[in-house]
Amino acid sequence: MRTVEWVDGGKVKMIDQRELPWQLVYQEYETYHGVITGIKDMVIRGAPAIGAAGAFGMALAAHKSETRDVAQLKNELEAAARAIIASRPTAVNLQWAVDKMLAVARDPQYPNVDAIRVAVRNAANALAEKDVETNKLLGAHGSLLIRDGDTVLHHCNTGSLAAVDQGTALGAIRTAHEDGKKVSVLLCETRPRMQGSRLSAWELDQLKIPFEVIPDTAAGYYMQKGDIKMVFVGADRIAQNGDTANKIGTYQLAVLAKENWIPFYVVAPTSTVDMACKSGQEIQIEERPADEVRAPYGLKLMPDRFPVRNPAFDITPYSYITGIVTEHGIVKPPFFDNLKKVVK
Amino acid sequence: MRTVEWVDGGKVKMIDQRELPWQLVYQEYETYHGVITGIKDMVIRGAPAIGAAGAFGMALAAHKSETRDVAQLKNELEAAARAIIASRPTAVNLQWAVDKMLAVARDPQYPNVDAIRVAVRNAANALAEKDVETNKLLGAHGSLLIRDGDTVLHHCNTGSLAAVDQGTALGAIRTAHEDGKKVSVLLCETRPRMQGSRLSAWELDQLKIPFEVIPDTAAGYYMQKGDIKMVFVGADRIAQNGDTANKIGTYQLAVLAKENWIPFYVVAPTSTVDMACKSGQEIQIEERPADEVRAPYGLKLMPDRFPVRNPAFDITPYSYITGIVTEHGIVKPPFFDNLKKVVK
Repeated sequence: MRTVEWVDGGKVKMIDQRELPWQLVYQEYETYHGVITGIKDMVIRGAPAIGAAGAFGMALAAHKSETRDVAQLKNELEAAARAIIASRPTAVNLQWAVDKMLAVARDPQYPNVDAIRVAVRNAANALAEKDVETNKLLGAHGSLLIRDGDTVLHHCNTGSLAAVDQGTALGAIRTAHEDGKKVSVLLCETRPRMQGSRLSAWELDQLKIPFEVIPDTAAGYYMQKGDIKMVFVGADRIAQNGDTANKIGTYQLAVLAKENWIPFYVVAPTSTVDMACKSGQEIQIEERPADEVRAPYGLKLMPDRFPVRNPAFDITPYSYITGIVTEHGIVKPPFFDNLKKVVK
Repeated sequence: MRTVEWVDGGKVKMIDQRELPWQLVYQEYETYHGVITGIKDMVIRGAPAIGAAGAFGMALAAHKSETRDVAQLKNELEAAARAIIASRPTAVNLQWAVDKMLAVARDPQYPNVDAIRVAVRNAANALAEKDVETNKLLGAHGSLLIRDGDTVLHHCNTGSLAAVDQGTALGAIRTAHEDGKKVSVLLCETRPRMQGSRLSAWELDQLKIPFEVIPDTAAGYYMQKGDIKMVFVGADRIAQNGDTANKIGTYQLAVLAKENWIPFYVVAPTSTVDMACKSGQEIQIEERPADEVRAPYGLKLMPDRFPVRNPAFDITPYSYITGIVTEHGIVKPPFFDNLKKVVK
C-alpha cells in the first residue's frame, strides 16, 4: 500500500484519507493544481506524505507543461513550487521536497525540457522510495525504546498514511510489534479531524496491534493512573533548538508526560528538521477552517454564528522532549548541539 | 428558565439538553424511574442539576406511591433513593440531595403518608430554590476574581443548565459580565459529549458574553500563548483534602495552568464537598458507553470493533487548585484545614 504514488501516463494517485476508516478509495490528480487541492482538503496529510505529494505535484507540473523552452519550464516550475509550498505552511517537509525537485530542474546537466521532465519525475519517485527506507530506519531505532508489555500513547496519525508507507512514530510501534514485543497503544482521538480514531485506529486494526481510542480529554487521566509507559509523536517541523511543531494537542501531552515522569519521544526523519529555523517562535501555525470544529464530517454541532478557533498545530518546547528519533539514531538533549550531528 | 422543576399535578419537567443548541425542548417524567432514565441518558447533567433532579425524583416517588402505611412509604422511598443515587456515581450532589429528602421522609413530625408526601415535595422545591440562591452567592464571590478585560478558560458546562438556574463557574463569569466587566470566555469543546460547544456556547450566546469554542487539544496552546488569565471549572465531588472530581479533561487543564502560571479555580457549592471522602483516590470514576466516543450524536466515526475507553470524570489533585469558590467565600489552601471552616 502506498499513500501517494505516480501513475504511468502522468497522474498522481492518493488514498483519500477522508473516507477512512470506512472505505479505501483513491483520488487521482492530473495537474499540480489538483494535488494542491488534495493537500489543502486533507485527502492526504502527514508531514512526510505531503512532502512526497508535493514532489509528485512538481513532477506533474513538469509533465503537463507544454513549453519547449528550458527557461520557460523553470519559470513554470518555480511558480508551481510556490503554490504547492503555500498549500500548507507548517510542515517543512513540503518545502524540503519541493525545493529538492526545483534543484533537479535547475541542474545544468539536463539539456532540454524532456530531460528535465524525466529527471524531476525520477527524483519524485526516488524521494518516495527514500521515504519508505528512512521510515524503516526510524522504526528500527524507535522500536529499541519500547519494551515488552509497554503501552504507548500516540497522538494524531504517524503511520503508513502519514508517509509514503511505514510511517514514523506509529511505524516504530509497528516495528516493535513485528519484532515480537507485546505492545499496546492508547490513541488520542485528535480533534478536530480525528486522525487518531479514524486513521491510526484503522491502521492498528489492520496490523492486529492492540489499541484503545480515548477522547483527547482523557490523556492526562491515563498518564496520572500510571497506564502509559511513553509517548510517541511525529513532527511537522523541528527547529534548530529542538522545539517541535506537531498536531495541535501535542504540547499539552508533552507537559502532562513531564508532570507524570513519562518519556516523551518525537519520531521524525531529519528532513523535518529546519536548521534555518532558530526556535519554535519562528514557525507559522496554520489556522484551519472553523467548520472542521463546528461540523466534523457533516455532523453539525454548532450554529455558524458560534465563533471557533482552529489552530492545526502547536509548538512543544525542546525542554519537554526526552529524545528525537531520526533515521540516523536517537538524538538526546541538548538538541541544539546534537541535531547538527545528524542533519546533513 | 429552570433546568428542572416540579409541575403541579405530579410531574418533573426538564430541559432536554441533548437537543441543544438546536432547540429548547422539555421532557416530562411521571415516575422516579423516568427521572433516573433522564439522568442516565443525560437529558439532564451537571452536578447541582442532577442533585435537584434526584430530589424531585424522590418527590415523585412519594407522590405516586399508593400505600397508606407510613413504614411502607419509607421503605419505598429508601428503594427509590438507592436507585436514584446509583444512576450516576461520581457527583456527590445527587446523593446529598436524595439523602436530604430521605431525612425529611423519616422526620417523625409528619404523622401520615399525605403529610410526608407534601413535606418531601416542599423540600425538593426548597432545595431547588436554595440552589439558585447558592449559585448567586457563588457568582458574587467568583466574579471578584475576574478583572476587566480578562479571558477565562472554561471546561464542560457549569452554567444555568448545570444547575437549577444561574450555574456555578459559568455563573461567576456571568456575574462579572453583569457587573459591567468586559470578560470573554474560551470554551473547551469537551469531548466526548461536547458540553462546551453545545451547552456553554448556547448559554453565552444568549447572554451576549463574547466567547470562542476551541477543540480540547488547543487549550494548552492558548495557555502557552498567554491568552488566558484564569481557568474556571465546576466540580462533581470535592474530597476533604481538596482533590476534585470533575468532567474528564479537567485534570490536564489544571496541570497546564500550573505549568503556565495561570490561576485555576474550582467554583462549587459546599454541597459538592464530601467530608466523608478523604482524597480523590476514594472517588469512583464513572465509565460511560463507548458509543459516546464512537458515534457522537449519531455521527459514526468508528466501526464497533474499535475498542474505546470513556471515563466521564477525572481527579485534579488539590495541589493544582488555586482556590475553591463556595457560597461562603473563596477557600484557599491548605484545603484540608480551610474547607472545614465553610462546610456545615
